[in-house]
Amino acid sequence: MTVRTREWQLAARPHGEPTPDDFRLVELDRPDPAEGQVVIRMLVMSVDPYMRGRMNAGKSYAARWEIGETMRGGAVGRVVASRSADVPEGSLVLADAAWRDVAVLDAAHVRVLPELPGIPPSYHLGVLGMPGLTAWAGLFRLAEFRAGDTVFVSGAAGAVGSLVGQFARLSGASAVIGSAGTPDKVRWLTEELGFTTAFDYHDGRVADLLAAAAPDGIDVYFDNVGGEHLEAAIGAFNEHGRAALCGAISAYNAVEPPPGPRNMFQMVSKKLSLRGFIVGDHTDLQPAFAAQVPEWLRAGDLVVRETVREGLENAVDTFLDLLRGGNTGKMIVRLAAEDG
Amino acid sequence: MTVRTREWQLAARPHGEPTPDDFRLVELDRPDPAEGQVVIRMLVMSVDPYMRGRMNAGKSYAARWEIGETMRGGAVGRVVASRSADVPEGSLVLADAAWRDVAVLDAAHVRVLPELPGIPPSYHLGVLGMPGLTAWAGLFRLAEFRAGDTVFVSGAAGAVGSLVGQFARLSGASAVIGSAGTPDKVRWLTEELGFTTAFDYHDGRVADLLAAAAPDGIDVYFDNVGGEHLEAAIGAFNEHGRAALCGAISAYNAVEPPPGPRNMFQMVSKKLSLRGFIVGDHTDLQPAFAAQVPEWLRAGDLVVRETVREGLENAVDTFLDLLRGGNTGKMIVRLAAEDG
Repeated sequence: MTVRTREWQLAARPHGEPTPDDFRLVELDRPDPAEGQVVIRMLVMSVDPYMRGRMNAGKSYAARWEIGETMRGGAVGRVVASRSADVPEGSLVLADAAWRDVAVLDAAHVRVLPELPGIPPSYHLGVLGMPGLTAWAGLFRLAEFRAGDTVFVSGAAGAVGSLVGQFARLSGASAVIGSAGTPDKVRWLTEELGFTTAFDYHDGRVADLLAAAAPDGIDVYFDNVGGEHLEAAIGAFNEHGRAALCGAISAYNAVEPPPGPRNMFQMVSKKLSLRGFIVGDHTDLQPAFAAQVPEWLRAGDLVVRETVREGLENAVDTFLDLLRGGNTGKMIVRLAAEDG
Repeated sequence: MTVRTREWQLAARPHGEPTPDDFRLVELDRPDPAEGQVVIRMLVMSVDPYMRGRMNAGKSYAARWEIGETMRGGAVGRVVASRSADVPEGSLVLADAAWRDVAVLDAAHVRVLPELPGIPPSYHLGVLGMPGLTAWAGLFRLAEFRAGDTVFVSGAAGAVGSLVGQFARLSGASAVIGSAGTPDKVRWLTEELGFTTAFDYHDGRVADLLAAAAPDGIDVYFDNVGGEHLEAAIGAFNEHGRAALCGAISAYNAVEPPPGPRNMFQMVSKKLSLRGFIVGDHTDLQPAFAAQVPEWLRAGDLVVRETVREGLENAVDTFLDLLRGGNTGKMIVRLAAEDG
């Protein structure tokens, strides 16, 4: 017996911006589960900016995707057959096995999720998952946020950025400033998420826009973008300013590295700190994160938006659209409906 | 009665590299000491790279020198007249009142120094003073040095850099790599200070020289130079590399800021930390510093070299020469001999 599945494989390594030709959707027969394995019907899968790095030949912080192998990524699914007592049939599970509609996995490689009333499964890929913990670790540990800080977030309408700004607001920031790439996103930040102010970075030099938005300077910067945004933040920092560097989506598709900040001398004169990080080094924060964030969700203090696309066959287009900023909040691909 | 003194004043703010015309040596009569004041005959004064920032109109981390006022800086002198019981005549004192041969100061603004056998007064301006504590704070606190780390120091033959490398060696570094600007300095680092290896940054691209010197990468970088050196260090960092940014002598005279590191994206992928600092924020480390460094000196574990020039009238030339790298170890101006 075998399990019929559709899977996305990397067909070629892109030079610059990826295209649909770099991917290939295949149909495969996977062997039936062995002892200790489960069969999972995937419900939702995640596309995330960091995945662009996995397409490259070089070393990245996440294991690269190999050409001809099925790509991996976060997904939530329902166990439809089990040969493991630990993960019974019917369990809701998180697995690093996206980009396919059915997966056969060792039970040890999946995490059984709690069934939380009112919490859709996709939240485990966003606010309650990796992007949420990323926002938490960057803001509270790397940038050493303290109540009273003025916080600037780039990519503020993204999965991580939208949470950083809200975590800061809920934790006593004196102001939260966001940058995003469309007027709709900017409005969403101030009108729905409670950002103090926000700007569209297409509207001028980021340094000028930030200076106008934060006339008294900033204390914390959460960087999802890199490039001009980082230079602007260094210029706007008050003394002892702290940046958590989470990603540089401006550079992901760049063939040549972008110029670095020309104001690095301010690192000394203002005693600044820049710290790059990946969430995988900070999983010890999971208990504190899991104690607070569902609480905020239940209380209605956190606004969560997802941009949801339908169907595994659209996963690549969804990913490419993400890299162009086509999402507001977490970008999700729905692979199967629970009642379907 | 008055006290006759010669003093250096700032005559003009330089645009780019300073010239002797930016300074003026004047003779003045200062009033006799009032109650609570002391008269100090200065023995040695310090010239330091950070002083270049004090010449500028803009904000720097050290108070700027005003045009027409006597410049200030670290000096060690002997109290020759006292109207303070706290600082009796004959005391050896440290004061922020250099660039003159005699000073009349409030006793509260001087620090009485211990008379240490075998330790010349000038050491309080170097290994036991601000440069020593700078090396200590940057290496152990900002860069979080740990035994086993491979350490890279730029400006390694300078007052601070030469101590950073030796502190690291004495604290269990697995390798210490230095860069300097002349073959003599490079030899001094490896043959006398115990650096594992060193290179002259004029001999090629810093990134190439560093890669050859540290084939297994670096863990800690102490930056006295900025610019190309910082970019090279980012490129050479192992995961979780940490840099203490102490100064950017490459930029002090620059009219245009130098380009920033083009490899900032490695901040995230390698989870790097860059932290600028000034020593004034870290004086709480003074007790630990004062407990260890004189001990190393007494044991003969630390090599200290000074480049000494004679006479207040040569102070400006000495300072300008410092900015061009004319020193090995701490640059000092001797203003008076103790037996003179």
